[in-house]
Amino acid sequence: MSERIRVLQFGLGPIGQACVRTLVEKAGVELIGAVDIDPAKVGKDVGDVVGLKNQLGIIVRGDAAQTLSVLKPHVVVHTTSSFLKGVEEQLLMCLRAGAFVVSSTEELFYPYERDSGFCERVDVVAHEHGVAVVGTGVNPGFAMDVLPLCLSSMCVSVKKIRITRVVDTGKRRLPLQKKVGAGISRAEFRERLAQGTFGHIGLRESALAVMGTLGWKLDEMTETIKPVMATKKIKTKFLMVKAGSVAGLHQKIRCTSGRKEVLTLELKMHVGVKGAYDGVEIDGDPPLSIRIDGGIFGDTATIAALVNAIPKIKNAKPGLRTMMELPVPYAFL
Amino acid sequence: MSERIRVLQFGLGPIGQACVRTLVEKAGVELIGAVDIDPAKVGKDVGDVVGLKNQLGIIVRGDAAQTLSVLKPHVVVHTTSSFLKGVEEQLLMCLRAGAFVVSSTEELFYPYERDSGFCERVDVVAHEHGVAVVGTGVNPGFAMDVLPLCLSSMCVSVKKIRITRVVDTGKRRLPLQKKVGAGISRAEFRERLAQGTFGHIGLRESALAVMGTLGWKLDEMTETIKPVMATKKIKTKFLMVKAGSVAGLHQKIRCTSGRKEVLTLELKMHVGVKGAYDGVEIDGDPPLSIRIDGGIFGDTATIAALVNAIPKIKNAKPGLRTMMELPVPYAFL
Repeated sequence: MSERIRVLQFGLGPIGQACVRTLVEKAGVELIGAVDIDPAKVGKDVGDVVGLKNQLGIIVRGDAAQTLSVLKPHVVVHTTSSFLKGVEEQLLMCLRAGAFVVSSTEELFYPYERDSGFCERVDVVAHEHGVAVVGTGVNPGFAMDVLPLCLSSMCVSVKKIRITRVVDTGKRRLPLQKKVGAGISRAEFRERLAQGTFGHIGLRESALAVMGTLGWKLDEMTETIKPVMATKKIKTKFLMVKAGSVAGLHQKIRCTSGRKEVLTLELKMHVGVKGAYDGVEIDGDPPLSIRIDGGIFGDTATIAALVNAIPKIKNAKPGLRTMMELPVPYAFL
Repeated sequence: MSERIRVLQFGLGPIGQACVRTLVEKAGVELIGAVDIDPAKVGKDVGDVVGLKNQLGIIVRGDAAQTLSVLKPHVVVHTTSSFLKGVEEQLLMCLRAGAFVVSSTEELFYPYERDSGFCERVDVVAHEHGVAVVGTGVNPGFAMDVLPLCLSSMCVSVKKIRITRVVDTGKRRLPLQKKVGAGISRAEFRERLAQGTFGHIGLRESALAVMGTLGWKLDEMTETIKPVMATKKIKTKFLMVKAGSVAGLHQKIRCTSGRKEVLTLELKMHVGVKGAYDGVEIDGDPPLSIRIDGGIFGDTATIAALVNAIPKIKNAKPGLRTMMELPVPYAFL
């Protein structure tokens, strides 16, 4: 790579901070700026905000539009929210500034069914400015969609795919442990579920991506989220889960096509997991079964997925893109 | 897919025949012709030649250039040889007829180091005619290159990759059993090795593809091929291997970069394998270890790789392409 890719970091939460720490290690990347809305971060040196030993000589900016137009990044690494709602203006702002975008927004991984209007608006602006945007990560973005799809390329026919991800959230950061309900009661779990925003964001997107990419007509999709209860006391680095309270969740999606169940995604995320793993079983010709013992460690892999997508999106055709349209992903070293 | 892809089969050996049997099952494909040099096949119905129950109303042609110019296929599935030598004219003929090409030629998977002149000539003609060509398969093409690369996308840094493929050739077709030397003596094994054409074709291409794609500077590559000896009598569907004779081969490539061993590819192909598998271990952040128990069944997966690449190559940028430049591969159902 002759010219270094000029990258701007949009959002300095835990994921954005980790992205910066990785970006500064990449020879092919020049970090040129960072924006965040948090007044406690704006005005400070990025190196200080993300916990580097050295300052970077780059000050966190609060005005994204202004910063984008002044700095003119090639690529923006966007890490602000899991949901389409709230990111549209941010994405459009980047695209209008002529920047390609890699985003951690889970719902953006395969956004077509959730909000076709959003997709059209983003796609139009991306085309107008000759740039592209993609959503990625480990899940959605790889473990339960891109990897199984990639494996399916070894099959002349596929009847059914079963994808499993078992995550020991006890080894992950605190927000994730809380996100899966570790430590709450069964009643609280039910309450949160009833509120409708509980559970892992993006499982639905993974399922839709696999169905849509393989061209399987989706007849019915059912999703269940159940608590996994702690049978004994579990202590993590951050919290204590009593026996009889919630350890985490078990989320499952089943998709049928032509009355047959063709796709199952099963995600178990709780503290106290014995034997975390990622698995894919393809009932096809030939049959294929893959297993990643220990599982793909999400805290780091999410950052890898985002950073490694930088050179891919920069060379992509203009528009709203998915990982399935970009070249085979690989490490950007 | 609105329009069916018009496909011509170029070469009707065992792989080409299996491709035809798969192609006729694909709704998105229309098989429009087949060519072969074997006088015993020319003039016969393709259905008869490939062992289908029904004739296809398509006669095997001997004159490839003439057939290509008359039929004008969108894509040619090319399955004639493992080596660059001998396929150049065939590929150029296809490209000049305006056809995209997916080829099983192992050396074409990553041909740059082996013959840069070949690459330039093919690339120029492909550009002139606005079409593209790619070499693929299970190995090279997936198990020991595309899959490990794809996994590396989950890592922020990679120190070393170790790729292993253990194949029970006793369960594969006879030519493959013979190819790995099953049944011959240790002396014969040495003789064949000395002749220089023995061993699995494409391991070198997989190694070069991983090194080149990750941008690792190759300092030294060493390749060894050793016999695996039968410790007891082994009987396969096709042949008998006596105790003390060769059961197959163990081929290994090590690549160093900056004096460190960064890549190891290890291929064991013999009869009597207990526990065939494909495995990738990445020493990186995070570390990753993947295992496919039983291994990817090559006889079928090779066909899948070729057929599933048809829609990808048809949408590729003109030129000589590699699988790493095409979008994520997946089943074309």
